[in-house]
Amino acid sequence: MSGQWGKKVKYSIFGESHGRGIGITIDGLPPGIKLDMDFINGEMQRRAPGRDEFSTKRKEGDKVEILSGYFNGYTTGAPLCGVIFNENQNSKDYDKLKNLARPGHADFTGKVKYSGFNDYRGGGHFSGRITAPLVFAGAVAKQILFDKGIVIGSHILSIGNVFDSYFDGVNLKIQTLADVLRKDFPVLDDLKGKEMKNIILKAKEETDSVGGIIEGSILNLPCGLGEPFFDSLESNLAQLLFSVPAVKGVEFGMGFEITKIRGSKANDVPFVYEEKVLTKTNNNGGINGGISNGMPVIFRVAMKPTPSIAKTQNTIDMATGENSEISVIGRHDPCIVLRALPVIEACAAMSILDFI
Amino acid sequence: MSGQWGKKVKYSIFGESHGRGIGITIDGLPPGIKLDMDFINGEMQRRAPGRDEFSTKRKEGDKVEILSGYFNGYTTGAPLCGVIFNENQNSKDYDKLKNLARPGHADFTGKVKYSGFNDYRGGGHFSGRITAPLVFAGAVAKQILFDKGIVIGSHILSIGNVFDSYFDGVNLKIQTLADVLRKDFPVLDDLKGKEMKNIILKAKEETDSVGGIIEGSILNLPCGLGEPFFDSLESNLAQLLFSVPAVKGVEFGMGFEITKIRGSKANDVPFVYEEKVLTKTNNNGGINGGISNGMPVIFRVAMKPTPSIAKTQNTIDMATGENSEISVIGRHDPCIVLRALPVIEACAAMSILDFI
Amino acid sequence: MSGQWGKKVKYSIFGESHGRGIGITIDGLPPGIKLDMDFINGEMQRRAPGRDEFSTKRKEGDKVEILSGYFNGYTTGAPLCGVIFNENQNSKDYDKLKNLARPGHADFTGKVKYSGFNDYRGGGHFSGRITAPLVFAGAVAKQILFDKGIVIGSHILSIGNVFDSYFDGVNLKIQTLADVLRKDFPVLDDLKGKEMKNIILKAKEETDSVGGIIEGSILNLPCGLGEPFFDSLESNLAQLLFSVPAVKGVEFGMGFEITKIRGSKANDVPFVYEEKVLTKTNNNGGINGGISNGMPVIFRVAMKPTPSIAKTQNTIDMATGENSEISVIGRHDPCIVLRALPVIEACAAMSILDFI
Amino acid sequence: MSGQWGKKVKYSIFGESHGRGIGITIDGLPPGIKLDMDFINGEMQRRAPGRDEFSTKRKEGDKVEILSGYFNGYTTGAPLCGVIFNENQNSKDYDKLKNLARPGHADFTGKVKYSGFNDYRGGGHFSGRITAPLVFAGAVAKQILFDKGIVIGSHILSIGNVFDSYFDGVNLKIQTLADVLRKDFPVLDDLKGKEMKNIILKAKEETDSVGGIIEGSILNLPCGLGEPFFDSLESNLAQLLFSVPAVKGVEFGMGFEITKIRGSKANDVPFVYEEKVLTKTNNNGGINGGISNGMPVIFRVAMKPTPSIAKTQNTIDMATGENSEISVIGRHDPCIVLRALPVIEACAAMSILDFI
Repeated sequence: MSGQWGKKVKYSIFGESHGRGIGITIDGLPPGIKLDMDFINGEMQRRAPGRDEFSTKRKEGDKVEILSGYFNGYTTGAPLCGVIFNENQNSKDYDKLKNLARPGHADFTGKVKYSGFNDYRGGGHFSGRITAPLVFAGAVAKQILFDKGIVIGSHILSIGNVFDSYFDGVNLKIQTLADVLRKDFPVLDDLKGKEMKNIILKAKEETDSVGGIIEGSILNLPCGLGEPFFDSLESNLAQLLFSVPAVKGVEFGMGFEITKIRGSKANDVPFVYEEKVLTKTNNNGGINGGISNGMPVIFRVAMKPTPSIAKTQNTIDMATGENSEISVIGRHDPCIVLRALPVIEACAAMSILDFI
Repeated sequence: MSGQWGKKVKYSIFGESHGRGIGITIDGLPPGIKLDMDFINGEMQRRAPGRDEFSTKRKEGDKVEILSGYFNGYTTGAPLCGVIFNENQNSKDYDKLKNLARPGHADFTGKVKYSGFNDYRGGGHFSGRITAPLVFAGAVAKQILFDKGIVIGSHILSIGNVFDSYFDGVNLKIQTLADVLRKDFPVLDDLKGKEMKNIILKAKEETDSVGGIIEGSILNLPCGLGEPFFDSLESNLAQLLFSVPAVKGVEFGMGFEITKIRGSKANDVPFVYEEKVLTKTNNNGGINGGISNGMPVIFRVAMKPTPSIAKTQNTIDMATGENSEISVIGRHDPCIVLRALPVIEACAAMSILDFI
Repeated sequence: MSGQWGKKVKYSIFGESHGRGIGITIDGLPPGIKLDMDFINGEMQRRAPGRDEFSTKRKEGDKVEILSGYFNGYTTGAPLCGVIFNENQNSKDYDKLKNLARPGHADFTGKVKYSGFNDYRGGGHFSGRITAPLVFAGAVAKQILFDKGIVIGSHILSIGNVFDSYFDGVNLKIQTLADVLRKDFPVLDDLKGKEMKNIILKAKEETDSVGGIIEGSILNLPCGLGEPFFDSLESNLAQLLFSVPAVKGVEFGMGFEITKIRGSKANDVPFVYEEKVLTKTNNNGGINGGISNGMPVIFRVAMKPTPSIAKTQNTIDMATGENSEISVIGRHDPCIVLRALPVIEACAAMSILDFI
Repeated sequence: MSGQWGKKVKYSIFGESHGRGIGITIDGLPPGIKLDMDFINGEMQRRAPGRDEFSTKRKEGDKVEILSGYFNGYTTGAPLCGVIFNENQNSKDYDKLKNLARPGHADFTGKVKYSGFNDYRGGGHFSGRITAPLVFAGAVAKQILFDKGIVIGSHILSIGNVFDSYFDGVNLKIQTLADVLRKDFPVLDDLKGKEMKNIILKAKEETDSVGGIIEGSILNLPCGLGEPFFDSLESNLAQLLFSVPAVKGVEFGMGFEITKIRGSKANDVPFVYEEKVLTKTNNNGGINGGISNGMPVIFRVAMKPTPSIAKTQNTIDMATGENSEISVIGRHDPCIVLRALPVIEACAAMSILDFI
């Protein structure tokens, strides 16, 4: 397993969804940061299920308890360990599934890799629940970055075939990010949002699931962040994003679309304006040669539809080695994209903090 | 700068395109590997420019000299350092450009980051030439993997708007990869290849450039490779791919397209066949929960059009801080996708070697 | 702070003596290891104070609770997090000391480094208590090594000016290590042990403290462990040993004494005996060129006398910047050497596990 | 092999004594450092053999060629690679030794570890020559530290049983370090120096060797450097020191002697003097709780006598597995301590640079 990540600030994540606790140690935070626990808990809530009709009815407490590194309201500079003690886990839901490989999940690969000793309950360490400590760490990182004027935000770009408007990579304002954050269903165009919700509900009725694309942004990044060759801004952030379960694609700026146009059109021409260097377009998503250029960093993340569905599927029985069938009864999300927004933002925050 | 990468096998890359030499140290290779220098030089040739009408007329020698870690035909187990001594560099080409920021390049971001001390000639450390040592390291990695039956291959999926056929993620054979490797223009459908070449030549005539998508594949990977959470197979490989200059997107399996279908369609259903576990489809690109499942690993990389074009563009003069114009005279590639194939494959080889 | 260490198995330590909990995450353990919790708790007891007349009367529970990575009696392969929740901490003892720098401690350096935000209570993160999770990790490592036939043991070589016999670096047997482990005061020569105890009691009466040297050993190490240049067996183990508070010297084999003899005497001459390669002497402590040679690894660790003493000392008041006096009232150890034995052994176990 | 080390500045060392070249890549240097090549070559000369009657008659050129990261007299911020191309290597000297394990060397352990593929010539990667690139890196580090007022120096504390005076840990001045650096035989007490030279010459006549202790010092270190728990100043520096071939012990401050005195005597009492915090004594060698306290850092390194001696010794033939004899003819040092001074200083410089 590799629960460790980071260079300047180092993280160590642990926990299985049905173990005693799930958490993360953050090592390298500067001392004297005043943690806003309300903000942190708010971020945890964005991720937690059971809040609305679009996600699972499981209630996950998700209250973080800090075991160390925090004293009298401030970080001490020592490693900060935050733990979420697991409650509300129906292990019974998973007993029947013990030997059946849930398609799309890591059941089979995990069993092979861990010789059968992995905790299969609820996906064990592979569970989406592992993203909870990530959101905690991201919340801490966001506060530190916010104090430096750096703001991170995101919206749902698409659910299935329905697409929202894209972020304006040249003129994106903090206010836009703030506005979309306030919404229950964070999209720019609420009409599109309504269509998306219908798609999700329909999938839910049909005991199926849908996926979508999240578009993220980082504003006010100073120019010069990123360490070519191997630790470019894209490399660093993509590594984190692809750690999140269900992510199958990452792109920056125009992304895959940039391959279809000419160089003369793709290049972002720089110009000087009021002593600042800006670019007329932002097809490169704010990053040149792996280094930030001061323009908004724009990126997109493809999240596949939730693998766990009640609809019956073919599979294999890992104990007997024979073909079988499975119906994953339980309280599952028809779509995790909404809940993944703070997770994606957390990745961005952790990545930038590693460079600042 | 971060020229270091890797856990089991550690790489340290160095060099600027107009310095004395460019190279890489590979630390952690097992002793007793017989290096096939012909194969290695062949891979370097795939990358080198000046071979055909589609790439630049610059001739780069690209002969690798091994300074250490290699004795009597075998690796010794000590760090292996390969160096390419730079010849054929026209520094004059770059003197006029010294203060003008080439749009799309790291000139401006590099100048800010390195306080003006970076080697601006030919892009210095940001030059695409830094991929030469990467291909060397990839060639060494490929040999080791090949001895274990693991084969890596790729093709040009698209140039501009023209698309080749996709790899068959379920039935892809080594023979297919071998066949496409033999071609001067590695595509599956030669008619499409012809269209692509026309696009490139047209761009060249118009002193412009085009980009494209590379599709890569890894066959015969054992089941169980990858270390969730933070070092999943996708994370590890994406980090390397995004280090390559000009890469703006990475996806696995169906990639961004997987976000448009239902979970019941997206899931790869496993079944047992002659004691092996296969999946009926391969929308996940051979990776579940960050771990390989034995099916072909399929991924795609978006490469933006070459930024350096002779066509006049607006820019800024970094010395005076004023707007200006630039025409990047010199011997540039209208399209680097063809030359990037061994670079992309090298990333895949280095990534897998870090897990085996 | 750097609470992270390790390459194959990665550790992340956290906790301050007066925070909610102190613990460690172990990432990279193979799945399927059956943890012997009795053995683990036994090791924790060796370290815990309050057991006898030689150490402090503080009672520290030191019961480890495992939050993750452990299921149905076996490691799962996922990160294993063990936490000791703090009880029995008299914060009042430390209030008066808040601004007075305890000589020999990290109070002043810590205050400077952490801008005053460090948790000063009981030494905060600098407390010797941080060695408790280390002993836990060491206990887990020892089990894994023991299953491979590798045994780690130690004894008190000296307290003040009184010296025990040295380990026989050529003929040291597992039985010797087992015998000494069983003793309340682990020395080879019990008469010397009696003298040592008197020294400790005398220091206690005089509200002072004493230090000593621990001699450690690793038996049955296979030949070939260690990674020159930078990760030699000595480098790796010394890095861990010097992390332990109060350690001021580390030596291998004859150590500093080897500098006084001729090369012809220092060299360990190899010979073949029953198909095994042994050496006639073992002045190098089982390590040549940074790599184990199969002979017992012998090393020594110098531990300075406990800094916290009730005897009045001069110091500075960190709030006013003026000279002052301090008398560190509280329940302190007159000598920590006895309690440090499992900590030193833990370092050895963690180090070897990183190579196996 | 582990040729990589460092966090802020990362090093990657390569080379065998009889390969084409030996070198090091330094990754993370700030841009704009003006390298003083005369100073660097001077440091290389301190290490090189053949200069005087006390060391071997082998002449090693040791001229460093910089391949990258250096342009127009300044570091560019890109990885800096320095290579020493090997000349003057008598491979013939080593052919006869191919299968005979030289006692005290890594011949046997290396053969086992590298399955016989290691470069046996002159010790291959285990050769003391690997310290040449280390001195180069140390020279670069020293310049950067010197610009910040930090000075590193050392002297020979002992050869065999003859001891020089010790550094005054409280009052040590830069002038003292400068004075001792200027000497051909760097000791504080020249009479003792004379005795030491006699010891070395006698050993040489008797085709034997001697070892000694080096005492090093770091002046003007700011308070607060070091990262407890695992990356304390002692841990970091000791890890580097123990990487150097022939090092068998490392101690700080009073070192092993501190174990013999009472806590009331060992503690360094702080006091305020002209707004600076000093300590009356410096038994802890300038480090408390793993963090620098501003007082001189004092440490000692035990170097064993050179293993390679012409005097006949028993050994084993690694090809036949039988006992045999060996006489290591060749040009060997009767004592490497003098040449090791810049190597030890290099370790100190690299270590401090990793914290600043």
